[in-house]
Amino acid sequence: MADTMKRLKAILAEVTDIQRAGAVLDWDQETYMPPGGIQNRADQASTLSEVAHRRFTSDEVGLLLEEAETEVANEPFDSDDASIVRVARRDYELDRKLPPELVAEIAHAGSAARPHWQRARKEAKFEIFAPYLQRAVELNQRMAEALGYDKRPYDALLNRTEPGLTTDQLEAMFEELRTAIVPLVAGIARHADAVDDSVLHRGFDTDKQVQYALDTVVKLGYDLERGRQDISTHPFSIAFGPGDVRITTRVNRDFFNECLFGSIHEAGHGMYFQGIGRNIDRTPLWDGASPGVHESQSRLWENLVGRSLPFWNHFFPSLRETFPEPLRGVDAEGFYRAVNKSYPSFIRVEADEVTYNLHVLLRFELENDMLEGKLKVNDVPEAWNELFKSYFGLDVPNDREGALQDIHWSFIGFAEFPGYTLGNIIGAQFMEKIRAEMPDLDSQIGRGEFGPLLRWLQENVYQHGRKFTPNELVERVTGQPISPKPWIAYVRKKFGALYDLEPVKA
Amino acid sequence: MADTMKRLKAILAEVTDIQRAGAVLDWDQETYMPPGGIQNRADQASTLSEVAHRRFTSDEVGLLLEEAETEVANEPFDSDDASIVRVARRDYELDRKLPPELVAEIAHAGSAARPHWQRARKEAKFEIFAPYLQRAVELNQRMAEALGYDKRPYDALLNRTEPGLTTDQLEAMFEELRTAIVPLVAGIARHADAVDDSVLHRGFDTDKQVQYALDTVVKLGYDLERGRQDISTHPFSIAFGPGDVRITTRVNRDFFNECLFGSIHEAGHGMYFQGIGRNIDRTPLWDGASPGVHESQSRLWENLVGRSLPFWNHFFPSLRETFPEPLRGVDAEGFYRAVNKSYPSFIRVEADEVTYNLHVLLRFELENDMLEGKLKVNDVPEAWNELFKSYFGLDVPNDREGALQDIHWSFIGFAEFPGYTLGNIIGAQFMEKIRAEMPDLDSQIGRGEFGPLLRWLQENVYQHGRKFTPNELVERVTGQPISPKPWIAYVRKKFGALYDLEPVKA
Repeated sequence: MADTMKRLKAILAEVTDIQRAGAVLDWDQETYMPPGGIQNRADQASTLSEVAHRRFTSDEVGLLLEEAETEVANEPFDSDDASIVRVARRDYELDRKLPPELVAEIAHAGSAARPHWQRARKEAKFEIFAPYLQRAVELNQRMAEALGYDKRPYDALLNRTEPGLTTDQLEAMFEELRTAIVPLVAGIARHADAVDDSVLHRGFDTDKQVQYALDTVVKLGYDLERGRQDISTHPFSIAFGPGDVRITTRVNRDFFNECLFGSIHEAGHGMYFQGIGRNIDRTPLWDGASPGVHESQSRLWENLVGRSLPFWNHFFPSLRETFPEPLRGVDAEGFYRAVNKSYPSFIRVEADEVTYNLHVLLRFELENDMLEGKLKVNDVPEAWNELFKSYFGLDVPNDREGALQDIHWSFIGFAEFPGYTLGNIIGAQFMEKIRAEMPDLDSQIGRGEFGPLLRWLQENVYQHGRKFTPNELVERVTGQPISPKPWIAYVRKKFGALYDLEPVKA
Repeated sequence: MADTMKRLKAILAEVTDIQRAGAVLDWDQETYMPPGGIQNRADQASTLSEVAHRRFTSDEVGLLLEEAETEVANEPFDSDDASIVRVARRDYELDRKLPPELVAEIAHAGSAARPHWQRARKEAKFEIFAPYLQRAVELNQRMAEALGYDKRPYDALLNRTEPGLTTDQLEAMFEELRTAIVPLVAGIARHADAVDDSVLHRGFDTDKQVQYALDTVVKLGYDLERGRQDISTHPFSIAFGPGDVRITTRVNRDFFNECLFGSIHEAGHGMYFQGIGRNIDRTPLWDGASPGVHESQSRLWENLVGRSLPFWNHFFPSLRETFPEPLRGVDAEGFYRAVNKSYPSFIRVEADEVTYNLHVLLRFELENDMLEGKLKVNDVPEAWNELFKSYFGLDVPNDREGALQDIHWSFIGFAEFPGYTLGNIIGAQFMEKIRAEMPDLDSQIGRGEFGPLLRWLQENVYQHGRKFTPNELVERVTGQPISPKPWIAYVRKKFGALYDLEPVKA
């Protein structure tokens, strides 16, 4: 009998190793691969992914899972073995439900759509991309049918990435967010001059920025013995196991925020990865609980820590030593205010802490309407612009800055945006709990002490990997269901003070 | 019927992709992997190698090969399909003959021996390593038995890497080399003062060295669109397919030769890889013909081109512009003489063009004697030192500079050294043929024109990949069997002139 778990774990380890090898290939492609390598790399990546998929979805794994389920039936829910079997079963069912032809069709449609999306965006002509978006909608509908759902097609897609969360649950939370953010954004717009961020554009030596960012994330607790930082067009974090978790950053001489906050964001993901228990290495548990929970950590470190006043009280002196010229005449508080300037913008990836969620809400609504046949693809730009106007009070000047801006739809990825907002919400929930247990957190941060915070997160969140679903994890850590209230309270307080707004009655 | 080749090729492509993914992992490990990554990486590498091996040695491939052999029976020997089937069959038979337990035992014994070899070398105590070398001999004997051979156990090992070559054939060539080199080395030793290489140690800025080396190999024809150069402890070249072939180098401020000639050496391998036909991409043919033939290209570019007078007539002016201080008062010919200084040394990897082969001959002899039971492991140091004295006229001061210097025996690798000498021999044979067809080669090199040479090599050697065995390839290219005569004539002429020696009657 014990042999079953051993055999199951051996196959799961093999599958994990192959997927991690695929991740090394991805990292290399984004950092050092010469341009000529693209075709060979595509072949290698798709072979590895096929081989891992074939192995994991084999009948052999199905049989082993059945036997293993009996074997671990009496073990505690959160034991390693019971959790491995439970999560492997969930992955197995999802992977088996998707017909290989559909997976291949999606991959192919994504490759085919990409250049047309690029051209459509460049020329700001939605009609070029429309047929490919139509295809994306159909493929997502087919995927939802294949995966199955009780109520709404979006549930099926959401369940793949954020297991246990429902569209209705998100809708209720997003409505609560919308009600809080829209007036806040309008209030900030009326007091826009209260924050001056011109210092961020004064020209910062790029090599020094990259080094300063690296030094900073090391101080936060990102372990360079098991990591490294490289440059890439789009910053990302990636893990090949507990011993090797890498981050990348980018740097812009004329906009300070990109490099430092990009690095802290990725290091947040990185510290999560580095904190997952070695006891569950080479199992399906060794990963973040979900994209949303992962994002809670990047945003917790980037925004709740990195964009706080105590953080800048600690770091600003060394920053000014590194960049004496551009920082002449600026003090810690002025810099704190600058990095927190909020303004409505058309582009999601450039959005600040307050407005970001509105971008997500808009996409969530449109995706649901498309999936459920309530919104025709040809009407997407109009629907986009209307919603945008109602959320931000701005007229979208063209589709490049509107419905064509995101790459996600070109590779058929629906139901991916909510993870960003879940991250904001969950991060703030964890932080509320942390502050209750560590009332002197701000003083610690002000002294540059991040060890206790990191250890709290490791113990309560990171070590568990995928053992718990997002709902289970938040309930376990905070004693509450997932709720946007702590995040709303946080932004109201912080931006109310920054922009001198009337307090809102909660 | 045509379906058979298609199915066979699909599996071979999959196996190639997995192996290439493994190569990306190796490259990363030697260049950028953080120290903590070692255990995860070992797992990933061994999983990929197992998965590729399992797939390639499956019964399915055996059946497809049988059918395919009938299918290609009437195709020309050098057609792509006939060659794919022939070479895949050869690999298949060898891989099937090795019991997986033996492969695992060898891998395990290698890992176990490594630290003991390191300590033995450090403390110059052969007895620490002796039991592990004993185990290496036994494992190599078992491997030879498993693979099978007609005459000598070494044949079985040699046939894996240099298919078609026999131990007797090597022995005859090595004897011819020994007879020629030993007196040449003695002659050079008597005229040692004729060449002054002090300029090489004058201190060369390391960043500039690395850039100069890269600029140089690009001029030779190494394609950066499909390649890149990084730094590693031991320089190497590695290919992930025709679109991505990388080299590494190392740099020493106080010894000029390391970086530039290391880079040219690896770029020689790299240009070979970059020249293999895309028509045979993702098949077992897409690789160098053998380690020996591969080495013929690294050494042809490094020594026959890079250490020639016309080469320095072209490059020295730009070198002096790059390094005005250390090169003050030196001219092209003086620099050419310096980079060619020959002196007997104890360490193989530091040996010059003339003495290098003697190091290989010595190891070849000892490995054969160990395998055939004529030499006991405990007597290896004595045998080593005796041979060394007879070849170089020097007394080996300790085993660290003698029998313990190479890493190869620690990972059970026998029959690997001859490839280096085969490279020297075959490179000189090709060069003799090239000079016959391109009588103005030296003028071309003097003008910095390397295109015609590279194209000749691409057309005659590189494009074929593994289609031909070393014997077949040399016969096809030069019309002659493999022979050391052109190399002997080359070193006698070059070093006779450099050291002002009496001409030898051939």
